[in-house]
Amino acid sequence: MLHFDCDYMEGACPEVMRRLAETNMEQTPGYGTDRYTKEAVELIRQACAQPEAEVHFLVGGTQTNATVIDGLLRRHEGVLAAETAHINVHEAGAIEACGHKVLVLPQHDGKLRAADVERYTTDFYRDETYEHMVAPGMVYISHPTELGTLYTRAELEELSQTCHRLHLPLYLDGARLAYGLVAANADLTLPDVARLCDAFYIGGTKTGALFGEAVVARRGLLPRFFTLVKQHGALMAKGRLLGLQFATLMADGLYLHLARHAVGQAMRLKQGFLSAGYRCHIDSPTNQQFFCLPNETIDRLSTKATFEIWGTRGENESVTRFVTSWATRPEAVDELLSYLE
Amino acid sequence: MLHFDCDYMEGACPEVMRRLAETNMEQTPGYGTDRYTKEAVELIRQACAQPEAEVHFLVGGTQTNATVIDGLLRRHEGVLAAETAHINVHEAGAIEACGHKVLVLPQHDGKLRAADVERYTTDFYRDETYEHMVAPGMVYISHPTELGTLYTRAELEELSQTCHRLHLPLYLDGARLAYGLVAANADLTLPDVARLCDAFYIGGTKTGALFGEAVVARRGLLPRFFTLVKQHGALMAKGRLLGLQFATLMADGLYLHLARHAVGQAMRLKQGFLSAGYRCHIDSPTNQQFFCLPNETIDRLSTKATFEIWGTRGENESVTRFVTSWATRPEAVDELLSYLE
Amino acid sequence: MLHFDCDYMEGACPEVMRRLAETNMEQTPGYGTDRYTKEAVELIRQACAQPEAEVHFLVGGTQTNATVIDGLLRRHEGVLAAETAHINVHEAGAIEACGHKVLVLPQHDGKLRAADVERYTTDFYRDETYEHMVAPGMVYISHPTELGTLYTRAELEELSQTCHRLHLPLYLDGARLAYGLVAANADLTLPDVARLCDAFYIGGTKTGALFGEAVVARRGLLPRFFTLVKQHGALMAKGRLLGLQFATLMADGLYLHLARHAVGQAMRLKQGFLSAGYRCHIDSPTNQQFFCLPNETIDRLSTKATFEIWGTRGENESVTRFVTSWATRPEAVDELLSYLE
Amino acid sequence: MLHFDCDYMEGACPEVMRRLAETNMEQTPGYGTDRYTKEAVELIRQACAQPEAEVHFLVGGTQTNATVIDGLLRRHEGVLAAETAHINVHEAGAIEACGHKVLVLPQHDGKLRAADVERYTTDFYRDETYEHMVAPGMVYISHPTELGTLYTRAELEELSQTCHRLHLPLYLDGARLAYGLVAANADLTLPDVARLCDAFYIGGTKTGALFGEAVVARRGLLPRFFTLVKQHGALMAKGRLLGLQFATLMADGLYLHLARHAVGQAMRLKQGFLSAGYRCHIDSPTNQQFFCLPNETIDRLSTKATFEIWGTRGENESVTRFVTSWATRPEAVDELLSYLE
Repeated sequence: MLHFDCDYMEGACPEVMRRLAETNMEQTPGYGTDRYTKEAVELIRQACAQPEAEVHFLVGGTQTNATVIDGLLRRHEGVLAAETAHINVHEAGAIEACGHKVLVLPQHDGKLRAADVERYTTDFYRDETYEHMVAPGMVYISHPTELGTLYTRAELEELSQTCHRLHLPLYLDGARLAYGLVAANADLTLPDVARLCDAFYIGGTKTGALFGEAVVARRGLLPRFFTLVKQHGALMAKGRLLGLQFATLMADGLYLHLARHAVGQAMRLKQGFLSAGYRCHIDSPTNQQFFCLPNETIDRLSTKATFEIWGTRGENESVTRFVTSWATRPEAVDELLSYLE
Repeated sequence: MLHFDCDYMEGACPEVMRRLAETNMEQTPGYGTDRYTKEAVELIRQACAQPEAEVHFLVGGTQTNATVIDGLLRRHEGVLAAETAHINVHEAGAIEACGHKVLVLPQHDGKLRAADVERYTTDFYRDETYEHMVAPGMVYISHPTELGTLYTRAELEELSQTCHRLHLPLYLDGARLAYGLVAANADLTLPDVARLCDAFYIGGTKTGALFGEAVVARRGLLPRFFTLVKQHGALMAKGRLLGLQFATLMADGLYLHLARHAVGQAMRLKQGFLSAGYRCHIDSPTNQQFFCLPNETIDRLSTKATFEIWGTRGENESVTRFVTSWATRPEAVDELLSYLE
Repeated sequence: MLHFDCDYMEGACPEVMRRLAETNMEQTPGYGTDRYTKEAVELIRQACAQPEAEVHFLVGGTQTNATVIDGLLRRHEGVLAAETAHINVHEAGAIEACGHKVLVLPQHDGKLRAADVERYTTDFYRDETYEHMVAPGMVYISHPTELGTLYTRAELEELSQTCHRLHLPLYLDGARLAYGLVAANADLTLPDVARLCDAFYIGGTKTGALFGEAVVARRGLLPRFFTLVKQHGALMAKGRLLGLQFATLMADGLYLHLARHAVGQAMRLKQGFLSAGYRCHIDSPTNQQFFCLPNETIDRLSTKATFEIWGTRGENESVTRFVTSWATRPEAVDELLSYLE
Repeated sequence: MLHFDCDYMEGACPEVMRRLAETNMEQTPGYGTDRYTKEAVELIRQACAQPEAEVHFLVGGTQTNATVIDGLLRRHEGVLAAETAHINVHEAGAIEACGHKVLVLPQHDGKLRAADVERYTTDFYRDETYEHMVAPGMVYISHPTELGTLYTRAELEELSQTCHRLHLPLYLDGARLAYGLVAANADLTLPDVARLCDAFYIGGTKTGALFGEAVVARRGLLPRFFTLVKQHGALMAKGRLLGLQFATLMADGLYLHLARHAVGQAMRLKQGFLSAGYRCHIDSPTNQQFFCLPNETIDRLSTKATFEIWGTRGENESVTRFVTSWATRPEAVDELLSYLE
């Protein structure tokens, strides 16, 4: 059976596993005060071209989103996000559980538009009853989006300028950031992201780490964040595990190298499905591919491979999601495509 | 200057004021353990034809919604509501501040449809990832709605049956309930509401009381509600003030009598605007009337009367809201209409 | 039957009732934007000798404490309070329900000592693990305390200086503030309280109002407080009811006049019990008196008067609380004392 | 430099690391639906002699405590715990951040007494104002305690019976459970713990795992716990990492074997310090040892080893904590003791 369900089906990339094994018996102090964490912080600052940035390591994505958003919002504020945003749909209400409302904006191929942020905020303060409503307090986007799509540099520049003009911190969920950075025609680099966002995270779990996400934030943006991380149950005792993994991933271009492999295999998948006469639900340049397939094709393929139905099954055809990762074997893609004939 | 901004511009109806004055120096125990509160509970049970119902008195609407919803939902659950619902827009995030998500459904003239509740819930549990999402845990409606519209008995029956089949408590926000009960062609009675909803509140603030809302709930639905009310800062020390007001309003049909006056004046307003050639934004049979008016008409009327722009001002015309109450003088309506020519 | 249970057994003082009746049919805009509220704000600023202070009106005490404390604390902070503090015991966890920890300090006759605040905070930051703990973020006291006792001016000065040095806002719960201001030997005036505290509230519910508490805060201390009040369900639609009551109470010394009456009757009670050979549980100079009484005396008095057992009933004797108010009739005190022989 | 700061200075025990490496490239579905997790669940059920128990895997201790306690308490309830409890001191207010109060009881050598739970609860319901207070809703203990001490079987039996009689779920924090199970004279077995507690967790982070805690709960006690775990940001994408580690630890007695080593070295430490004439702050039979040392000894030892000052440094002597683990080398203990002369 082949598996294209998601990008977290294997453990960690071999380099990470090797480093974990090599350093296993070293003794380090806890909670991220170790030398590997310091090393990772420096490598990330360099990669982001932000020598002053604050860098914090957490374990998973939902936790990271909830903790950062909780740190950025005041009581009377909510977070603007696309209706399809992960925080709005698939995080079990983690943002609301912290007391904050997700303020929903329309999505365009999974993306948020600067004009929508502008209009919402302007209309908000023009409404005479605005003090009775949750104020927009920050903006959440993800890159790539839930649909695998990407912001162009122009789009992110515009969003960033709009947010700054409106005094709304811009936060980018980078659970799959690496896959976005290496996509063909992608014109956003890691320094671009770091320059244009007030905070974002570099996803480890889905790109080569066993687990872990690295929050990068403008200095001073998240005061007493350590305590907030602890309060959210997100502080790892053996913090060095996070530091070591990111120190490994960020050295020698490994992080992007892993992503390039995944995106390459995704493009092979896409070409194969298109050649076989199927169509894409959306044109994704990253490691998630969405195909509209007849239900009978889905049933037939399901005997050979696992993948996701996106949303609910349709009458005759359904949207499916196939995901590649740093670990996807080219032979697995070949085999899957061979079943399309 | 005339005032049609809202239905809480005056104090209380004369009967309530008189009773407050008469009983002012009586000594009663606090927190709703007094005889007036007991009397009000019994009168409400009778009016609802629910001799076993639990009745609790709170001070205001947002507080009541937040406390009841907090009492009904478990951690992993959210409340289904129309996108225009008061709890979703105008309560400053009070529901989310308690940790709960408002799950938004489309509105149809301000109303929620049983079919939408059914579809949302069915789709929810058919989604393989449903355990990662906030489960629908109850349904919130208001009657009249934010737009002054009413559920028919058939509609509420269907909603009620759907909710029961799906094990979702149905909660009705009755901030303006009285105005809905007395509207022309209204076919929902107070016993209907009590029979079809698991919990609801009878609004006092907007219909003759100085302040106060009476929650009516199926016995056992809200265990330890007293403590929850206290925790929400909603427990009135001099609880008898609430009991006395509701005992007064619910006796001898006063509550509905007050509402009839308001709706009568609202119908006169509507006829006047229609006769003058303006049109309704929506066909409301209750005490809130929404007219589409040219901006120049708005500016002219604004020198004579206060009223609300609904949402934001349009380019050439805007939606306006005129509200009557138990206290609206017929002469004030006459005068307003005289400015329309 | 006589009643000495608490100071909220009657309605409002006659002047407040009269003004409510007189203004009942006036139309004013909602949510505290009316002229009575403006008038009350100015009178309070004058009485406090703080022309720039922010003044907000809420309905009840628990609600006020929760909303102000929620507005003052950041996520990682808690509120320092005496173990006997109302917020720590009798508010059903309202502070924790907002996400904040009450950090408990010892009480001395119901009071908090500056030295304890100093020691707690100093020790906190000397602890190497302090970032794993809830940081002290503000100080809560009440005046009079739960036990009816009073801070001297020297004590409050010291507490205020300590708090400022430690960057901890000092908040004073003034549910019974009036009774403290007029006690014999009390050397703290309202301007003193306003000068020494960053925020406090002037209690109306227990001193002549039907209901209502007036928060007074240093300008800028509580940004966007209106929305927070709404979110807490504490925003009154007919805000003018609060404004009007405080405008009445703060004019012509009425507020303190009412309190003087109550404290005078409390002193008569105390002298009576002492003369009859009973002893005080604590030496309270305000309107709450605590007597240690044999259980048989309690049982006998209970046939003539209602009052509270303080805590739980003891083996042979118990602590009792007798409370007077602006409404206590001297004849009622006479009669109660006549039962002591 | 020697290190005795804590029991999470190294990575994982060799067996765990080996299994992680061996299975690294296997593909499994996410979120704990994999075969390793199933295997771990079964092994834990067997070890606990509870074939029906629910078992859930989370990443860290604070997170586990917050999620379980949030799942057990209703809104109006708090958790009874010793004043020294980890949840009361060192979890940055994680319990309060979920809206719940920690109700503090006295500690006796770090332990909670059944009689105190009984008295608190009985007094609570005898207080006439109990509905204004946070109700005791569950009991939290840890075993070993924060001070390394242990409950006897008789003590836990009594606590369990008391809790059941009072309808309070009993939850045991087992961050260091293994070290308690293997201590000399310990008479509590894992099946005892499972039988006497409604829920508890088996700590992995501090006993051989890289990270991870296994919650064991009575069936039906924690409905919809999966979603709650997700909401708390505690759901691991690669859930198999947790399953695999516990499957490894629970097989062939490895878990207790690791603990025995640690406790053995701790006993050597204790004997060494006692022989050198120092005294224990408390008589701990587990892997944490607390010695009262003159400050000059502390300063001298600090040049050779790292360890913790417990609380704040005293005038002349201070309490210190030395911790051993499954990874402590006997030579390190020898060397440390050699510095005592």
